[in-house]
Amino acid sequence: MSEITRVALDAMGGDNAPSEIIKGAIDAVGREKNLKVFLVGQEEAIQKELQNTTYPKDQIEIIHASEVIETAEPPVNAIRRKKDSSIVVSMNMVKKGEADAVVSAGSTGAVLVGGQVLVGRIKGVERPPLAPLLPTKTGVSLLIDCGANVDARPSHLVQFAKMGSIYMEHVMGIRNPKVAIVNIGAEEEKGNALVKSTFPLLKECKDINFIGSIEAREIPHGMADVIVCEAFVGNVILKLYEGVGAVLVSKIKDSMMTTLKTKIGALLVKPALKKTLKSFDASEYGGAPLLGLRGLVVKTHGSSKAKEISNSIIQCITFKNQGINEKISECIQKKEENLED
Amino acid sequence: MSEITRVALDAMGGDNAPSEIIKGAIDAVGREKNLKVFLVGQEEAIQKELQNTTYPKDQIEIIHASEVIETAEPPVNAIRRKKDSSIVVSMNMVKKGEADAVVSAGSTGAVLVGGQVLVGRIKGVERPPLAPLLPTKTGVSLLIDCGANVDARPSHLVQFAKMGSIYMEHVMGIRNPKVAIVNIGAEEEKGNALVKSTFPLLKECKDINFIGSIEAREIPHGMADVIVCEAFVGNVILKLYEGVGAVLVSKIKDSMMTTLKTKIGALLVKPALKKTLKSFDASEYGGAPLLGLRGLVVKTHGSSKAKEISNSIIQCITFKNQGINEKISECIQKKEENLED
Repeated sequence: MSEITRVALDAMGGDNAPSEIIKGAIDAVGREKNLKVFLVGQEEAIQKELQNTTYPKDQIEIIHASEVIETAEPPVNAIRRKKDSSIVVSMNMVKKGEADAVVSAGSTGAVLVGGQVLVGRIKGVERPPLAPLLPTKTGVSLLIDCGANVDARPSHLVQFAKMGSIYMEHVMGIRNPKVAIVNIGAEEEKGNALVKSTFPLLKECKDINFIGSIEAREIPHGMADVIVCEAFVGNVILKLYEGVGAVLVSKIKDSMMTTLKTKIGALLVKPALKKTLKSFDASEYGGAPLLGLRGLVVKTHGSSKAKEISNSIIQCITFKNQGINEKISECIQKKEENLED
Repeated sequence: MSEITRVALDAMGGDNAPSEIIKGAIDAVGREKNLKVFLVGQEEAIQKELQNTTYPKDQIEIIHASEVIETAEPPVNAIRRKKDSSIVVSMNMVKKGEADAVVSAGSTGAVLVGGQVLVGRIKGVERPPLAPLLPTKTGVSLLIDCGANVDARPSHLVQFAKMGSIYMEHVMGIRNPKVAIVNIGAEEEKGNALVKSTFPLLKECKDINFIGSIEAREIPHGMADVIVCEAFVGNVILKLYEGVGAVLVSKIKDSMMTTLKTKIGALLVKPALKKTLKSFDASEYGGAPLLGLRGLVVKTHGSSKAKEISNSIIQCITFKNQGINEKISECIQKKEENLED
């Protein structure tokens, strides 16, 4: 239980690198003893940030990587060519068994490609899904898949449901998580070709608590813990969530600044309002795991600050201690055997 | 220009029928002289509502229809069997040229099926899309398609773009409306198979102002006037929009009721806040047109009150006076000719 979790942290990824990333690492090792963080990136820049800070030297180590993958670079090329980039070096550490997990706020595309190509899939996993947590009225739900591989097959979605269910149960601590598939109506006969083919397969799964279809309207109400969809739809949901929230909040703030009366009112409601809006902010819950890999890869928001980085690192400890990958492997293999029956 | 627009109003459809529907009709004829509304439904129930109200008798007429299609009924069966339902009778009035448009807050499925089967498509239109208006930071955008027919082809999406563009320009008065396709990244090479095949076709279209891909995050910011997608994605966007808005607003309201201080603050900001939230409420903008039919069919929210019904009826007048169907027909035919070249 108390084995050390080793996290390769991409010190150069994201809008606030390296400063906030390194602050996040220092915060995380302050919270957890059984943790080692490798700060992967340009040594000079990292050293500069570490100056004048105090931290347990045995828990933080710099791994020099001379290159940086930019957000705009085509991911496949970047991973292939920038062998000494912080993302590639981090991924290779997991591949070689020198680290258990990678945390990166860098290019989503490069993280997804690097995870698949360098870290590699667990045997039997057809497609590793990116699974962010969405804030809801009642807590959080896992949205699986939001990755870069679109046009999924029904068998992919079934694996997403299983992996998502394991994650929510053992990392997030939700017992017997409710699994639903995104659809445009509640009835089984509704949906596009993919959903119609996947629905009966999910119904047959004995190792998940499948509750049927979920309409997009119900997602923010927290009607399901694991929300299964293919990546195009997942991306639309994730980004629209952010967009509608951002626009609505900005409109509400504007409306409170129109008159002296509303300004006074705004002062009075501000602290409570801030707390509410924070609870609806995805970055509070750490990054999105890329599941089904031989190791763990966590993608945090490009705009991540120290808190999200720290939370994402802590997430890796639970992931390792709970043996999530062993559980995924067992669950997927079992399915494989069943199919061979 | 001042020809009379004749609207067959489904008096029995929606959660608030017939009371709010009939109030909406009375409001509309009060606003517009060149308008005739047929209240289609059970005569006795309609008469009861009309008692003790005053309205111009020459502008409102009851058309008896003995049956009502319930929301839960399978649409195809309902349309086929309930020949004397308010929806079927309304649609047939348009088919026979006795009305120009149908407005219904009833079963979405039945309205979509009825529109296609009874009213019929404009020659050359492959699939009639349902196109609701979404509130944005800067105004409204047309989301096309949110209908019931999923798994669209690229040629469908191209027609959606053209019809949506005509609607936004001539009904909503937006000059040279910006058309975008929903995608998971800005680059042309991104997307699923459907989007990748559709993108170059839209780029070639000379009669629309195609601005490229739009990520879901940008939709609420009002980055495009016409947002093209296939119906599964459209349904997800429309319903998530409603869901995130509703949950966020309810959380904000709750947060303002936590202490005496916040309650006083809430009183001060309430009127401004209410106005803001109203501007983000889709029902303010009338119903969603089902485009590409030989006539106009407008589907309003099931929860429609008098104001949305009234706005939807007024929408039909602009639609007719602007010759939208003639413009759609011309635009689609032109494409057909081009293809034959």
